[in-house]
Amino acid sequence: MIQFAVLGYGTVGSGVVEVFFRNRESLERKAGVPLGLKYILDVREFPDSPYKDLFVKDFDTILNDDSVGVVAEVIGGVEPALTFTKACLERGKSVVTSNKELVAQHGAELLAIARANNVNYLFEASVGGGIPIIRPLHSCLAANRIEEVIGILNGTTNFILTKMFREGMSFESALALAQRLGYAERDPAADVEGHDACRKICILASLAFGEHVYPHDVSAEGIAKITSEDVAYAASCGCVIKLIGAARRGEDGKKMTAYVAPAFINRETQLGTIDDVFNGILVRGDATGDVVFYGKGAGKLPTASAVVSDMIACAKADGSSASMSWKPSQGGNVAPQGDHVTAMYLRCRAFETNALEEAVKIFGKVKALSRPDKPTNEAAFITPALTEREIDDVCGKLAAAGVDILGKIRVLADQ
Amino acid sequence: MIQFAVLGYGTVGSGVVEVFFRNRESLERKAGVPLGLKYILDVREFPDSPYKDLFVKDFDTILNDDSVGVVAEVIGGVEPALTFTKACLERGKSVVTSNKELVAQHGAELLAIARANNVNYLFEASVGGGIPIIRPLHSCLAANRIEEVIGILNGTTNFILTKMFREGMSFESALALAQRLGYAERDPAADVEGHDACRKICILASLAFGEHVYPHDVSAEGIAKITSEDVAYAASCGCVIKLIGAARRGEDGKKMTAYVAPAFINRETQLGTIDDVFNGILVRGDATGDVVFYGKGAGKLPTASAVVSDMIACAKADGSSASMSWKPSQGGNVAPQGDHVTAMYLRCRAFETNALEEAVKIFGKVKALSRPDKPTNEAAFITPALTEREIDDVCGKLAAAGVDILGKIRVLADQ
Repeated sequence: MIQFAVLGYGTVGSGVVEVFFRNRESLERKAGVPLGLKYILDVREFPDSPYKDLFVKDFDTILNDDSVGVVAEVIGGVEPALTFTKACLERGKSVVTSNKELVAQHGAELLAIARANNVNYLFEASVGGGIPIIRPLHSCLAANRIEEVIGILNGTTNFILTKMFREGMSFESALALAQRLGYAERDPAADVEGHDACRKICILASLAFGEHVYPHDVSAEGIAKITSEDVAYAASCGCVIKLIGAARRGEDGKKMTAYVAPAFINRETQLGTIDDVFNGILVRGDATGDVVFYGKGAGKLPTASAVVSDMIACAKADGSSASMSWKPSQGGNVAPQGDHVTAMYLRCRAFETNALEEAVKIFGKVKALSRPDKPTNEAAFITPALTEREIDDVCGKLAAAGVDILGKIRVLADQ
Repeated sequence: MIQFAVLGYGTVGSGVVEVFFRNRESLERKAGVPLGLKYILDVREFPDSPYKDLFVKDFDTILNDDSVGVVAEVIGGVEPALTFTKACLERGKSVVTSNKELVAQHGAELLAIARANNVNYLFEASVGGGIPIIRPLHSCLAANRIEEVIGILNGTTNFILTKMFREGMSFESALALAQRLGYAERDPAADVEGHDACRKICILASLAFGEHVYPHDVSAEGIAKITSEDVAYAASCGCVIKLIGAARRGEDGKKMTAYVAPAFINRETQLGTIDDVFNGILVRGDATGDVVFYGKGAGKLPTASAVVSDMIACAKADGSSASMSWKPSQGGNVAPQGDHVTAMYLRCRAFETNALEEAVKIFGKVKALSRPDKPTNEAAFITPALTEREIDDVCGKLAAAGVDILGKIRVLADQ
């Protein structure tokens, strides 16, 4: 018999308990051993819960119980999750988690502790909610050299952008709706400013390229500046705007590229059709080509099911360590964002001069865009592919020529 | 050191050898042990191959070499693949394969032999080419009760249907083009008549529902009867026609549903946008909701990369048996196709009577469709959702009323 413990009885934690007891019989068949859920750690009281006898308030009760073989850490945040996780791994307990912040910040370290103690540290639920992505990237695509990962990694911002695109809502109204529906938190900064997506692309990049990538090395731009005008220009050229996290292997020993930013994406591509709160992740391998994983990227039960699947994997492995890991790094392994080559959508306004003519003078050639009710002093266009540094230089020149830059969004090459 | 052997040096086999030697270093890092490829079995001579020293003609050379721990069977077909696979498993060698025919026919038996000998039998490459689906379905979604699997499982027919939809080609021209491009074989029956997709949905259903499903129990209808008119009617209601394999868990102890057939699919859904030679598989779990896997469903390197990834998984497991398996069955576990409830597209012609009026008389209510240049004596419509038996009855009545049925295609409810 293998006993589980769950640390934290919030949204994901209560989902984990629900999924475990609902599907326990089939889980035991898949694990090949009887399974129990012995403890739930939470500082709060749940006197009416059907699982009220399982609650404990003292972490040491779990740590010191050698019958507990697998611990689900679904507290979130760095502390006390980090201390608890280390302690469990060092005591020979496998740990599974949905905690993207912890994995993005301390993944290499925790994987090394797990390996040293011959247990597992698994985190399928940390990226893409219920979408299988960590294990497929690690195991199923093991024969590939992964070249690139591009994902729509945050459901809240995708919901907002979908409402802006489909219903012409402003960013503010779409955010308010997302908050009313419970898709966005009262303080939406982590989602809207791209920090959540940034942690996820760091985890994917670390796994794909074998070396820890820290969030503070990755440029993250959110969606708060996107306007209805930008959305209309995107639509005019067959595109939608999506918040993407992208990471590309550095060629010939150069540093990798990694960033989070809104981008124009061709509506007719697999990523371009991912709407509402759904997530999708494209993985490009040298042998298998492009593979896309799609599903609900968040939510209690999808995320919980990913946590429970990892618990089963640990129960099956029982004492043997899966080899998932990546090298630690000191950081600084991501190329400066200025080196990144991309075409750029620019929306400008000029009163004294013609914005489009000024742009053509400087860029040589641009793709002009239009939209219904475009004011005559507004211009929007897509630049040729240049480094972001070059584009910033040009924007400086445009400004010097009396052209205000109102919008600036990367254009993703067709996948 | 773990030694591999490859049985069969056809398209997939040569891809396996290529991927192995190209990515050997990273494969060894992932496996955690040195790896060798010691033998390639083929009856033919390859005097100019860089691997010419590895070729053997006698299977027993491989079977009797105890240093060979993992064998890739990429011969295809039932024999001699079945005999070779059994012999290897019984000698304690893990076997990985892309052989969908063998897995669909003998999967339960071979998995049991593998388990009894504490080795692995893995077949990620048998469905979806390079798309990870077998392991995600088994492991990553382990916490779910899988309710339904729907897939576009055959790239050749998807290419043909895409050409018919996008370029208005006839079935015959699109097939000829597919043959010219090497996507379809000279004898295209296995693809075009749905047998290939049928084997794949059997494997997915067996894994998802835990009990062997035989191809001869699953109704398979191909795409040869689909005309440009059908495609035009589909487009008129926002649909495309795709060849799908579908399997749904039987409710309350009833038999499961499983079939292969062309179907109208809403173009705006994840499956509806899967074009050309790409495959996509939707898995519906009770906790995770819908998850879709997308990528190249065939081709030398994608399929080979899935085989090699399984070889690595076996090398890592080294002597321990993964628990993937399903129960044997005597067959007969699929409900008769007549019980299947679906809306149906019907295209009819009548000379003596009004086809649409006759249909309304019998069905009560239908959704009438139109297309450019529709002849006045032609009618096309979508019926209410009924059992296929009821629809067949009604078609009989229509025929008796002087209405010829020219086309009949299932309509997939929006996913």
